[in-house]
Amino acid sequence: MPPPARAVAAIGDNAGFALPIRTRMNVHGIATQTIAAIGDDRVEIIDQTRLPHEFVRILLTSPADAAEAIAVMRVRGAPLIGATAAYGLALAAVTDAGDAALADAADLLAATRPTAVNLRWALERMLARLLPLPPAARRAAAWAEAAAIRAEDIAQNRAIGAHGLPLLAAIAERRPGPVNVLTHCNAGWLATVDWGTALAPVYAAAEAGIPVHVWVDETRPRNQGASLTAWELASHGIAHTVIADNAGGHLMRRGEVDLCIVGTDRVAANGDVANKIGTYLKALAAFDNGIPFHVAAPGPSIDFALADGSAIPIETRAGDEVSHILGRADDGRLLRVRLTPAASPAANPAFDVTPARLVTGLITERGLVAADTAALAALYPERQTR
Amino acid sequence: MPPPARAVAAIGDNAGFALPIRTRMNVHGIATQTIAAIGDDRVEIIDQTRLPHEFVRILLTSPADAAEAIAVMRVRGAPLIGATAAYGLALAAVTDAGDAALADAADLLAATRPTAVNLRWALERMLARLLPLPPAARRAAAWAEAAAIRAEDIAQNRAIGAHGLPLLAAIAERRPGPVNVLTHCNAGWLATVDWGTALAPVYAAAEAGIPVHVWVDETRPRNQGASLTAWELASHGIAHTVIADNAGGHLMRRGEVDLCIVGTDRVAANGDVANKIGTYLKALAAFDNGIPFHVAAPGPSIDFALADGSAIPIETRAGDEVSHILGRADDGRLLRVRLTPAASPAANPAFDVTPARLVTGLITERGLVAADTAALAALYPERQTR
Repeated sequence: MPPPARAVAAIGDNAGFALPIRTRMNVHGIATQTIAAIGDDRVEIIDQTRLPHEFVRILLTSPADAAEAIAVMRVRGAPLIGATAAYGLALAAVTDAGDAALADAADLLAATRPTAVNLRWALERMLARLLPLPPAARRAAAWAEAAAIRAEDIAQNRAIGAHGLPLLAAIAERRPGPVNVLTHCNAGWLATVDWGTALAPVYAAAEAGIPVHVWVDETRPRNQGASLTAWELASHGIAHTVIADNAGGHLMRRGEVDLCIVGTDRVAANGDVANKIGTYLKALAAFDNGIPFHVAAPGPSIDFALADGSAIPIETRAGDEVSHILGRADDGRLLRVRLTPAASPAANPAFDVTPARLVTGLITERGLVAADTAALAALYPERQTR
Repeated sequence: MPPPARAVAAIGDNAGFALPIRTRMNVHGIATQTIAAIGDDRVEIIDQTRLPHEFVRILLTSPADAAEAIAVMRVRGAPLIGATAAYGLALAAVTDAGDAALADAADLLAATRPTAVNLRWALERMLARLLPLPPAARRAAAWAEAAAIRAEDIAQNRAIGAHGLPLLAAIAERRPGPVNVLTHCNAGWLATVDWGTALAPVYAAAEAGIPVHVWVDETRPRNQGASLTAWELASHGIAHTVIADNAGGHLMRRGEVDLCIVGTDRVAANGDVANKIGTYLKALAAFDNGIPFHVAAPGPSIDFALADGSAIPIETRAGDEVSHILGRADDGRLLRVRLTPAASPAANPAFDVTPARLVTGLITERGLVAADTAALAALYPERQTR
């Protein structure tokens, strides 16, 4: 049975349309993806800043639209940032596909978020594809290349799901009851084009009939767990419980977590992992309790140019993301409220680096790999420059 | 100069009145304490559920009032819970000082919060003092004993400040710039009668002219850091920055934390520490980075009846403390907003246990002590039952 017309009309068309329904994540039974081209001059996204309270799709019609969507986090998650940046260049090519216009658009897009390497990766790939072509050929090539990046992301995440599935299956075989997975931030399908990275093995397990329950770190200050991960798991029908970020260590000490899986914004060549602020604390707790801590890392998130994590740039965001929060009032309105005294400043580092020694393994589209320089180099030989 | 009349009239009388102003914490220059008897039939507290947005004092006139204030956390913090419970029994004695009435009131008060041992300690101390007396003598004795508990808390915290001060002074001597202290939850004067436990060394350092800056964990889900610690530090004029609970590990890796000091709700005989959920994660990060992790632990918070922390009861609070949050809207109203999807359940363990191996030392009113069975027993020989 093809997906319902509403879903197709609403979001997802060129790259996703031909796929059977089970290769897309569901929103209350309707197959849905996070980004899709509409023809060759518009791009549709979900405005994730309004989730979980409102499910709203918006159109991007210029590279400035795409940059704004990335900067204010209407789209977020390293893989989706990469795909959106690629479409941002395709939108630039609609009005001017000259070298200068594409370079300007790339600069604008690159400046939005510093930590996720997928952003730079996608822009460089697009420019490498487009600049050698005559300007007249670039528009069509840009939309095709962005669609390829989009399709590859889906395939990569599907593969990550398949490679991560045995980790959950092994736990399910060992004892009855659901497999308890703890995740931080949102590395689900909302962070990618489809399937997600950290949650791909969870969705694969559910599809395979393995009972699974997810502990969802709310992930302050932007609450991507409480708003996005909880919403997508609820929408797809996966058992889950939202917890304060503070609770994970206690649950691990009590034996209530079988496995941690998180996503990443950038992995260094040695396996050090940059991910949403607070990831390092959960890795420490998992290590202290002998619980496996896995990082779902698609190839584009691995930065072989960095020997270790110390040089990964860490984005500092505005303090008002800590001092204020958006929520839904009893009357249904979305309201931003202040949590702190007016006289108190707030600091907001957005990522931290988890050292490779705390990472049990990386789940890539090529398989499970140890978080160390030699293992990563062996898995991606074509990306080694020496 | 005596404290301004407004402060004396407003809060603090019998036990605090005679103390010079520097032995009280300030709210914008006005010396203030958290709980005080008004005559011998009413008790005044600060309604801490309305901080940092509104500073409101309310009266307790019955043991039920006191129990409600503890249960809904108008007063919180192990030492202040103990003092409030003591006054709850004093309020019971106003109307009926018979054995049954006091026992009923003690049961009501004991059932409010399970984790803080000070609650049980204060109730047992009050009953041990009152029950041997003829009923006619109990009312006066109850108010006197509660006042003694209150005064001892102030003295204990002052001593903790004095014993913790050298930890900060040693850092200040080593290098220029402020001493950066990270704290979790609120173990400041709002958690006690005055001075605080974890923050007592900070206030003592400020009094001694040592520059100090506090990283304030917001402390989800109830945000005691963002609302109470930030408010009391701002009110007293101590430099501080509010951070998401997730940020502490990153700051430690970057060398921006010199010392962690937290409070406790119960310390086991071996030095295992129950404290606000998330404390364990910070202790792990401090250990991983070689940063001292101290716990301010007044004697009444040490439970020598428990060999280790595994038997400390951990309170589970309602999930709506995670799914909803109270804040101040732009129009000044205090509003509760929902953060999670309606379909997503939330779990809310309120405390965790940090193993003694991660605790650099306990700061008690008797001095700094190692978190181990022999050292604690040697420091409190009169409380050893064998």
